[in-house]
Amino acid sequence: MIKYFSENQVEKVRFGRPFPTESIILNDFHEKAFETDHLFKATTFEATTHLTIAMDIEDCVYGLGENLRGINKRGYQYVSFCTDEPKHMPGKTALYAAHNFFIVHSRDQSMGYYIDFAGKITYDIGFTNQENFEITVEGIDFDVYIYRGTPNEIVTSFRKSIGQSYVPPIWGFGYQQSRWSYENMEIVENIADGFDQYDIPCDAIYLDIDYMERFKDFTISQRNFPEFESFNEKMLARDIKLIPIIDAGVKIEQGYDVYDEGLKNSYFCTDESGEPFVAAVWPGKVHFPDFLNPDVRKWFGEKYHGLMKKGIQGFWNDMNEPAVFYSEKGLRELFIWLKEHENTNMDIYSFFEMTDRVARLSNADEDYKSMYHNIEGKRISHYDVHNLYGYFMTRAADEGFKILNANQRMLLITRASHVGMAKHSGIWTGDNHSWWEHLKLNIQMMPSLNMVGFLYAGADTGGFQDNVSPELMVRWMQFSLFTPLLRNHSAMGTRNQEPWRFEGKVKEHIRNLIRLRYSMIPFLYSEFMKASITYGMMFKPLSFEYEDEASKRVEDQLLVGDSLMLAPVYEQNAVGRFVYLPEEMLLWRATAYEDISEEQFQIYDSGYHYIKATLEELLIFIRPDKLLPLVAPKNRVNRLNRKSFVLLGFTHEVSEYELYVDDGITFDYKNHNKYELVKIEAETDGKCRIDQEDYSIQKSFIFRR
Amino acid sequence: MIKYFSENQVEKVRFGRPFPTESIILNDFHEKAFETDHLFKATTFEATTHLTIAMDIEDCVYGLGENLRGINKRGYQYVSFCTDEPKHMPGKTALYAAHNFFIVHSRDQSMGYYIDFAGKITYDIGFTNQENFEITVEGIDFDVYIYRGTPNEIVTSFRKSIGQSYVPPIWGFGYQQSRWSYENMEIVENIADGFDQYDIPCDAIYLDIDYMERFKDFTISQRNFPEFESFNEKMLARDIKLIPIIDAGVKIEQGYDVYDEGLKNSYFCTDESGEPFVAAVWPGKVHFPDFLNPDVRKWFGEKYHGLMKKGIQGFWNDMNEPAVFYSEKGLRELFIWLKEHENTNMDIYSFFEMTDRVARLSNADEDYKSMYHNIEGKRISHYDVHNLYGYFMTRAADEGFKILNANQRMLLITRASHVGMAKHSGIWTGDNHSWWEHLKLNIQMMPSLNMVGFLYAGADTGGFQDNVSPELMVRWMQFSLFTPLLRNHSAMGTRNQEPWRFEGKVKEHIRNLIRLRYSMIPFLYSEFMKASITYGMMFKPLSFEYEDEASKRVEDQLLVGDSLMLAPVYEQNAVGRFVYLPEEMLLWRATAYEDISEEQFQIYDSGYHYIKATLEELLIFIRPDKLLPLVAPKNRVNRLNRKSFVLLGFTHEVSEYELYVDDGITFDYKNHNKYELVKIEAETDGKCRIDQEDYSIQKSFIFRR
Repeated sequence: MIKYFSENQVEKVRFGRPFPTESIILNDFHEKAFETDHLFKATTFEATTHLTIAMDIEDCVYGLGENLRGINKRGYQYVSFCTDEPKHMPGKTALYAAHNFFIVHSRDQSMGYYIDFAGKITYDIGFTNQENFEITVEGIDFDVYIYRGTPNEIVTSFRKSIGQSYVPPIWGFGYQQSRWSYENMEIVENIADGFDQYDIPCDAIYLDIDYMERFKDFTISQRNFPEFESFNEKMLARDIKLIPIIDAGVKIEQGYDVYDEGLKNSYFCTDESGEPFVAAVWPGKVHFPDFLNPDVRKWFGEKYHGLMKKGIQGFWNDMNEPAVFYSEKGLRELFIWLKEHENTNMDIYSFFEMTDRVARLSNADEDYKSMYHNIEGKRISHYDVHNLYGYFMTRAADEGFKILNANQRMLLITRASHVGMAKHSGIWTGDNHSWWEHLKLNIQMMPSLNMVGFLYAGADTGGFQDNVSPELMVRWMQFSLFTPLLRNHSAMGTRNQEPWRFEGKVKEHIRNLIRLRYSMIPFLYSEFMKASITYGMMFKPLSFEYEDEASKRVEDQLLVGDSLMLAPVYEQNAVGRFVYLPEEMLLWRATAYEDISEEQFQIYDSGYHYIKATLEELLIFIRPDKLLPLVAPKNRVNRLNRKSFVLLGFTHEVSEYELYVDDGITFDYKNHNKYELVKIEAETDGKCRIDQEDYSIQKSFIFRR
Repeated sequence: MIKYFSENQVEKVRFGRPFPTESIILNDFHEKAFETDHLFKATTFEATTHLTIAMDIEDCVYGLGENLRGINKRGYQYVSFCTDEPKHMPGKTALYAAHNFFIVHSRDQSMGYYIDFAGKITYDIGFTNQENFEITVEGIDFDVYIYRGTPNEIVTSFRKSIGQSYVPPIWGFGYQQSRWSYENMEIVENIADGFDQYDIPCDAIYLDIDYMERFKDFTISQRNFPEFESFNEKMLARDIKLIPIIDAGVKIEQGYDVYDEGLKNSYFCTDESGEPFVAAVWPGKVHFPDFLNPDVRKWFGEKYHGLMKKGIQGFWNDMNEPAVFYSEKGLRELFIWLKEHENTNMDIYSFFEMTDRVARLSNADEDYKSMYHNIEGKRISHYDVHNLYGYFMTRAADEGFKILNANQRMLLITRASHVGMAKHSGIWTGDNHSWWEHLKLNIQMMPSLNMVGFLYAGADTGGFQDNVSPELMVRWMQFSLFTPLLRNHSAMGTRNQEPWRFEGKVKEHIRNLIRLRYSMIPFLYSEFMKASITYGMMFKPLSFEYEDEASKRVEDQLLVGDSLMLAPVYEQNAVGRFVYLPEEMLLWRATAYEDISEEQFQIYDSGYHYIKATLEELLIFIRPDKLLPLVAPKNRVNRLNRKSFVLLGFTHEVSEYELYVDDGITFDYKNHNKYELVKIEAETDGKCRIDQEDYSIQKSFIFRR
């Protein structure tokens, strides 16, 4: 049963009777006769649908949001099935998200596709056979939305159909420090003191699972944080926000209100027999709230109010794929198997079966298949709607926040996600490693995250697992400087990677970089807000702006907002890198806000260049007739003077920048149009203008050809 | 107790009383007073020695043989402890080898160091702190050899002290096809037929563990290879060599001659109680021959004669770190632990302890520590001499070969290795993955393997684990084309990656590349032999020949022999790459031997370039006044006419090449100086000369500025 619809430039093809993911907010499609010019073919076999998309040999494929590999997704296989993947290696195909939107970018015409489906989808984009694009949908009930135009037009059209992107409070653009784990008040205070002592900016400190009482959501460990509320007040007085974690699983423990209420009201996912499904995660045995049920979402969302009333202004939702270390059933079956084999002279095949069974205990498809949601009296296998779980948990949080205070922005990031979630929160890209390869992955992933609406996004800077080297820390910071979410996060047992943990010059470089970040916050925030309001991207591949063939092949440079191009250094021992310039640009070899001088600027012709960059040098390219406004860095976002600028620019005719400004903390910009657009201009003779009286230009570095 | 010696330009510092690794063949050192200008400091703490080496901020560190990361080893940590490492990820620190030789390359003076020690060594080369080079030797008895000079001088001096590198028969330069597993005669024959059917060259097919009877060394499965000897004869008549695998562990099975003899003669390593140590590997329970005992080596080496007498001319020694899936003791302890926990409500910490215990069963330090060698009545912990095991197994094989036929070259590659082994065999780089990152690792590892004498080396082309994409297969082949060992090997359960398994054009590209390989064999063999005889390197970093600063930073280009520079494409979807030329060079954009035409050549100035390379184009740079002689490709090495050349050259004044030629199968080149050096020249006007009558130049492409 295929139905065909269209509305403006969006077309929709319906297969069967899809489960509503609520990711698309458009609803006025008109049914039409099916048009035969669609660029995909569909065949259904049993419970699976195969889609084949036409692809020319030089086409590029962009999208799939949070996933492995390059900007151009061609040449590999990908899976959309939210996974707690601890090792983001090149052989993996799925991460924490399911973002089924992609663009086939052709010379003549580009096409965007969104497959609106809550279950597993596999993509083979010229992997098995270079010229074939094969998609396997594990289901027969789903919608495909089709978009036409340039890549930018397609993205904007798609983004309009999924809603406006989440906007954090402006202090969310400050530097954020995290670790698994700052486990008690003393440690958190020491960390805050470290930033003050070394005079390094910081706006937030994260609380990982140890702030809770035995990892129970919405509780506070009396041992670790005996005076949580007053401690938080003390931190707020220092302009430091504490960001506690909330996990998906609810600990099974009689007398624990969340467990008791969930049980009483049948709010948990169930097993085959209708009993609450038992999995083990950090708290030990847990039940999973059935977030697909609106009553459950309301109940769980309001649970956040307890911490909010204690002054908490931000959260991170974790383990919401949902991650399952093991299920009660899986562990039971393992022990039965082990019992059968313990007295045999275990042969090599039994041994590998054992290691394999142990490895497969976590996040097992069989467990997801034997867990159920109960929606309007109907039982639905979790496996079939798996990719919605984290999305609907985070929706619960966001909707809960707004019940308490509809006009206050909250900081919210989450791990698992699906298309549609971007209107509720930002994301971090999960448990990466301190690998150069993961800095590159971070660079390559930013545009595809933006494509599906995740503008407030960033990676664990420095890497979560493994030990970071000083050099990697600096180079990573040089990139994360530009990501709206700038968070340094690392795992238990790894090297401490707060800025002052490194020696001499490296510590100084990191401090200078964080201070540079703060000097750019008005610009970054402005670019972010414009992207959210206009359904645009803040991080773009070169090919989204430049139509030459060479730009299509650039995998390690990005356009940031309207003014900048980045060419991050992401290789060990590098003292420079190759850069492609699609047009003439001005290079600023940035080191520290205090050190800006004429010698740091150089105009480069379009074309290919090798550009030197010592460890302390950050390469920032300013595009022609564009500006980069900076402000004096301070140690907190709210201490910045956002009205007095140092202006950097490259002027052919006249450089222009429109700076978006609002209160940074409420939704008045949306509900009451309360925001300003401040116009800044620079002429070829270096003269600068600003069109609002209370704004000023303190100094300028305007270059011309 | 530190003693200091010197001999010619080599100095030696002795700590304590080292176990003899027999890696250094020099022996006429003279004891001298300790000189204070050594560039390292040593401190001993309990059973560990810390060495600190001075390093300037711009120094590069080369070496460590088979290990992870780049050509310049700076910025990371490495461990020398032979490990059956299934995943060569960026977070790993050790592979299958222990190659404790490295060069600190400074502007003023470079220093080479070889730490002659059989146990574990850890290197921190500016990882924890950018400027520090810290080495931890897990012992107090070892030698340090110190070499001074340019990097090339240091390598030659070191290589002279470890002996002349292994030389395979010339057919070992042919294309070799492998898979785990071509498990029976029919399948092997089908593979051979495939090469004939698609007209693709091939000289050898590998037999993985299934050719054996229940994985017992030196046996043949009667079910899979019922007529092994006549089958091998049939294959030899087609000029296809079969290369069987030999594993380190000997299956425990009464009536199996190797087991019975080993047991009777106490040839196996023992446990604490003096009983043969029991580990499990492919055959199930095994004992490990005590290869450190010369009697055991002689006994085991002669076991190869059985297969040699059936016509076998090559072997691969595997699992000789030695790999241990589990020990009897380790498994017993796991089951005791499991029994204690099976009826408890396993909490999350016990769960992770369980998964961790299972993961740690394989290749456990505790097992290596409870296994013993018995040398001249003295019991030595295996852990302390672990890194010699594979080396001494392979030495046993090589010495065994020579007992049967002293003048016949055998093909021999091995997985685990140590410095000193290079005089006995070549190596493959172990179980890599079908990852672009591992193609890059392959490129970066070739020079460091050459530095420790492994000239006959190569990676599993296309990748062992995971599925290869057609594009990766082609790009990898474009590099492996130049490695003396060119073997396509893949694992059970992965995509079939024989050349004809790919579609249309890709299949044709691969065929063209293998044919190009055969056309280059006289050149590659010549460069290989000259490197072996003169203790030189066949693959060099640019900085070993060019002294400019930029050359020091090139991590993805290599000099191959005297004439060529390679700039392999190693990125998905790339249609070109950046290249640095330290001097003017001639680019040959090679596609197929038949297609060589003037249009494929282009002279590039020194400097930085972006160079296009479609999938079918292989970038080969010819250096000034150098030549590349090609011959017409055939489907077997022994069918090549090695005396009629197509000559490619780039001439400033006069291009010269000295071609080494010998019989390719005996040691007469060494024992009786039976080899020729054929001098080929080309003038700027394109005129070519060859100084031997029976050689001829059929065609030439000589370019000049």
